[in-house]
Amino acid sequence: MPTDFQELREKMLKSAREGIKEAYSSEEYALIQAINAHLETSKSYNLAYERLTEWAGIYFPEKRFTNPKTLAEFALSMSGTEEKSASGRKMNEDEKKAVTEFAQMSKDMGAALTALEAYIKLASNRILPNTTYLTDEKIAAELLSKAGSMERLATMPASTIQLLGAEKSLFKHIKFGSKPPKYGVLFKMPVVNSASREARGRIARVYATKISIALKADYYTKNFIAKELKKGLDSSIEKIRAMPPREKPKPQVRQFTKKRPNFPSKKRRF
Amino acid sequence: MPTDFQELREKMLKSAREGIKEAYSSEEYALIQAINAHLETSKSYNLAYERLTEWAGIYFPEKRFTNPKTLAEFALSMSGTEEKSASGRKMNEDEKKAVTEFAQMSKDMGAALTALEAYIKLASNRILPNTTYLTDEKIAAELLSKAGSMERLATMPASTIQLLGAEKSLFKHIKFGSKPPKYGVLFKMPVVNSASREARGRIARVYATKISIALKADYYTKNFIAKELKKGLDSSIEKIRAMPPREKPKPQVRQFTKKRPNFPSKKRRF
Repeated sequence: MPTDFQELREKMLKSAREGIKEAYSSEEYALIQAINAHLETSKSYNLAYERLTEWAGIYFPEKRFTNPKTLAEFALSMSGTEEKSASGRKMNEDEKKAVTEFAQMSKDMGAALTALEAYIKLASNRILPNTTYLTDEKIAAELLSKAGSMERLATMPASTIQLLGAEKSLFKHIKFGSKPPKYGVLFKMPVVNSASREARGRIARVYATKISIALKADYYTKNFIAKELKKGLDSSIEKIRAMPPREKPKPQVRQFTKKRPNFPSKKRRF
Repeated sequence: MPTDFQELREKMLKSAREGIKEAYSSEEYALIQAINAHLETSKSYNLAYERLTEWAGIYFPEKRFTNPKTLAEFALSMSGTEEKSASGRKMNEDEKKAVTEFAQMSKDMGAALTALEAYIKLASNRILPNTTYLTDEKIAAELLSKAGSMERLATMPASTIQLLGAEKSLFKHIKFGSKPPKYGVLFKMPVVNSASREARGRIARVYATKISIALKADYYTKNFIAKELKKGLDSSIEKIRAMPPREKPKPQVRQFTKKRPNFPSKKRRF
């Protein structure tokens, strides 16, 4: 039965291919890639601009650049026109080539960031319309990326959503008894990070509860209920802000020596 | 005497400008910027390619890319031609734009790296001809960048040159009594990192002594003496390689508890 076997093999391969196709069929995976690309490229972009600022400073010590784009334009123009700088080093042709190429790269990174942002905005509003309305497109996408898939994110309890992105300090808390984190990705929202120290955790908490409802609408029912959720959210935040400040901060009891669990390795950790 | 004051002011400004110009007049500062830009951009480039590989994998799970350039070309071509992938997600127009722009950025980063490398090669051979002959242009430039200037680098003892780039583990050794580092930047040389564990430190040591001589020639006398230095170096390395391996490794005594110095802060460190 070589033909039977051949047939079976073809069928299995076809079904495997379809399985892969289905697994990646949703746009959410493209959005996850895009937000991760954006987060990583932002860091690289800032690093490149710090370097370019320092480099341009050798030739034009008296110039100050507040905007990365102005700096890149200036660095690119250095190669074309004659420099009129009184102080600073006069660059040779080899330096010009290198610094110009580096400035061009920094500019290209800015263009890539803009393209990624545009895509994230479109995709977040398509995949997570309710959550995007409550937060913004980047935070919604980052929550999705941290969870790994829409299904996992939509079935998460509010407390997990509140701490998405705070895994490191959460495990530090569990292992060593340091203070528990109050927010992860949600701290990037101005309404959380600009609130008072006491209100921050509470605001993150009410946001997380509303986001968990919004996510269920995004994934299961596909209804747009974010406007009503936002109203409830705003009134909760009003209440939190109106709370009187706590009388006295509790003393922080560090439990390192008392309740430290046993570790497999007793080696000192740096 | 307003005119006298004016005149004095002009003179002071002029001398300040000349001071700055002189401080930056040497090409070594451009080389320091270029090598730092290269080291930082290499990291960003690798990160961008890991991301691009993962992203392209959604659409073409069966493709394998061994070379970043092939991947970028492929990702760019995805936007132009119709995809023929059997498995994998079919991308929409918005995704195409984002992934193409990202691939273009990765390609531009590669071009910038090439330009930086070309400049580093020229400048290292101009500023540090002897050191570059003994090591290579990137290592010579990195040593210069770690030292901060040719003057500081040329006056450093060989032991300091040996450990340039190992500051972190050196201070860990001084503070906590961990094992002292044997090499910093010099570990990047194949002759050091491919040697046996025992020989590595010794080879780094003899390299550092010859480099310290080469640096003095580079900075003070401007003679090219690297060929003779290299001969001496090669025979020393031969001797080190011919040494019989040590009988038994010494037990490593960790001195954390015995000799740990007092710190200003007694807080637990993670």
